[in-house]
Amino acid sequence: MSTPRPGAGARRDTYTPDTLLAVAVTVFNERGYDGTSMEHLSKAAGISKSSIYHHVTGKEELLRRAVSRALDGLFGILDEQHARVGRAVERLEYVTRRMVEVLTGELPYVTLLLRVRGNTDTERWAMERRREFDHQVAELLKAAAADGDVRGDIEVRLATRLVFGMINSIVEWYRPDSGGRLTDREVADAVVELVFGGLREGV
Amino acid sequence: MSTPRPGAGARRDTYTPDTLLAVAVTVFNERGYDGTSMEHLSKAAGISKSSIYHHVTGKEELLRRAVSRALDGLFGILDEQHARVGRAVERLEYVTRRMVEVLTGELPYVTLLLRVRGNTDTERWAMERRREFDHQVAELLKAAAADGDVRGDIEVRLATRLVFGMINSIVEWYRPDSGGRLTDREVADAVVELVFGGLREGV
Repeated sequence: MSTPRPGAGARRDTYTPDTLLAVAVTVFNERGYDGTSMEHLSKAAGISKSSIYHHVTGKEELLRRAVSRALDGLFGILDEQHARVGRAVERLEYVTRRMVEVLTGELPYVTLLLRVRGNTDTERWAMERRREFDHQVAELLKAAAADGDVRGDIEVRLATRLVFGMINSIVEWYRPDSGGRLTDREVADAVVELVFGGLREGV
Repeated sequence: MSTPRPGAGARRDTYTPDTLLAVAVTVFNERGYDGTSMEHLSKAAGISKSSIYHHVTGKEELLRRAVSRALDGLFGILDEQHARVGRAVERLEYVTRRMVEVLTGELPYVTLLLRVRGNTDTERWAMERRREFDHQVAELLKAAAADGDVRGDIEVRLATRLVFGMINSIVEWYRPDSGGRLTDREVADAVVELVFGGLREGV
């Protein structure tokens, strides 16, 4: 039995919420959320606008679902056993590694989250949630400094910003399908080594 | 003697190449280079389009001047005494510090350089020059690793990307006029400490 084939112009709508979301996120990342119309989404998905409206109320719902997926991934880290139990510095190291893994594993969703700029309610909500996540990681860094396990001479907020800057910059160049030259594991290892140990060889 | 005042609608064109460039860079960073028309530049500068054409051949020349200013700042570092003489690790540390200083000192120009995406000849040229700069810093890192002063267990290209990622992310939040809470010196110190020493307190 063969699957019914779409007609010449429009594709048969076989999308699930997840597969439609994947198309939308690709378009959002290429054109920017503001620059994307329902027309663009319809063309990219190969189905009519009314078919899209069958799945979602509009592009803002797609944005909300997409950034939620990224945020759920990130906040999920904080609920994991190794993020909750143990010395703060070890928890911080675990969270750092897992952040890289979520970023590389959910690359288009995290990329979109990082590019959100706050023009709509959903964007402002996403930025607020990002700040909350950053804040929780900063608290962990503060606790590790209080334990004397992490240097206290760099202000916590500045250190957090710089570390997040390094991690978030990975979306600019990491591609999971680029011939497997670098695995997500290697990237995560390098980030953890650099952030905690620094470049310099032990004196 | 009073300076002649501009009329109600249009401003008298008292721009120098540098002050006109400053206006253009602000608009490019706000709207994106692609999204900026000569009309936008004319409105932001408060002078007519033909007045702008009196200064430059068009917006691509403004882009070229702007990214050149950032690139000249960055490449200038490599010609400085401390970047050329001494152990590779010390030169690398000096270059890292100076990169942060150039970034904070020439913030809008470096921001524009980092956002350039390669749709025009000027953009492709700017990206090529950026890669060349990155390459020269990577070579310095390689030399420091060969000296045994920098850890050899993180691949040079990956380490360079992560360090550049941290430094470049500063354009996302650093504002020189934000009440002076953080000076460029404090940011540069923190980056150097983090990149070379890492977060962890010496065991």
